[in-house]
Amino acid sequence: MPNQSVELDRVFQALADPTRRAVLQKLTYGPAPVSELAQPFDMALPSFAQHLDVLEGCGLVRSRKTGRVRTYQLAPRPLKVAERWIARQRAIWERRLDQLDAYLSVLKEKKP
Amino acid sequence: MPNQSVELDRVFQALADPTRRAVLQKLTYGPAPVSELAQPFDMALPSFAQHLDVLEGCGLVRSRKTGRVRTYQLAPRPLKVAERWIARQRAIWERRLDQLDAYLSVLKEKKP
Repeated sequence: MPNQSVELDRVFQALADPTRRAVLQKLTYGPAPVSELAQPFDMALPSFAQHLDVLEGCGLVRSRKTGRVRTYQLAPRPLKVAERWIARQRAIWERRLDQLDAYLSVLKEKKP
Repeated sequence: MPNQSVELDRVFQALADPTRRAVLQKLTYGPAPVSELAQPFDMALPSFAQHLDVLEGCGLVRSRKTGRVRTYQLAPRPLKVAERWIARQRAIWERRLDQLDAYLSVLKEKKP
């Protein structure tokens, strides 16, 4: 699925930055306006806005403007797509370990 | 934890590329030599080697050279760290939704 691959590229890219992860962490507790999101960071607002653009570009957050205030909220679907990709790899890997384990047990039983 | 933050930066960065994800997917089925890993990709070997370096640099894979053959294997710990980070966000977010839901129920009950 090329589309999902592009989505994963963008989501993982978005998650590869501590400021953007901190924004997502904050938004898990509820929607927040830009000023509140920017407050913990010692960063010029245009730079901070770029981080928000990356998050919104890959669908991890949505924003809405009411009057002069833009409020952001988490959109968890891309997060689920990323989590599912990782979980799938882990499951395959753990199944393989189980198979190896079973194979070793068989070998041990065969040993006199 | 600044160290874990740096680790997450690097792991998510490593995952943000389809070639690197395909290599990890392949390695979930067992260790493989470079030639076998490179085979599906229409890519010069030095470029491919850079992808392997990124994966090894963040600890997602380990390699061992035997004679002239370098073999790679998955090292799943960083994958778990990334998965745990995402799962934690999702858990917080879902708990918040449950709380909202409970609050709405209370409001409904109070309604005459």
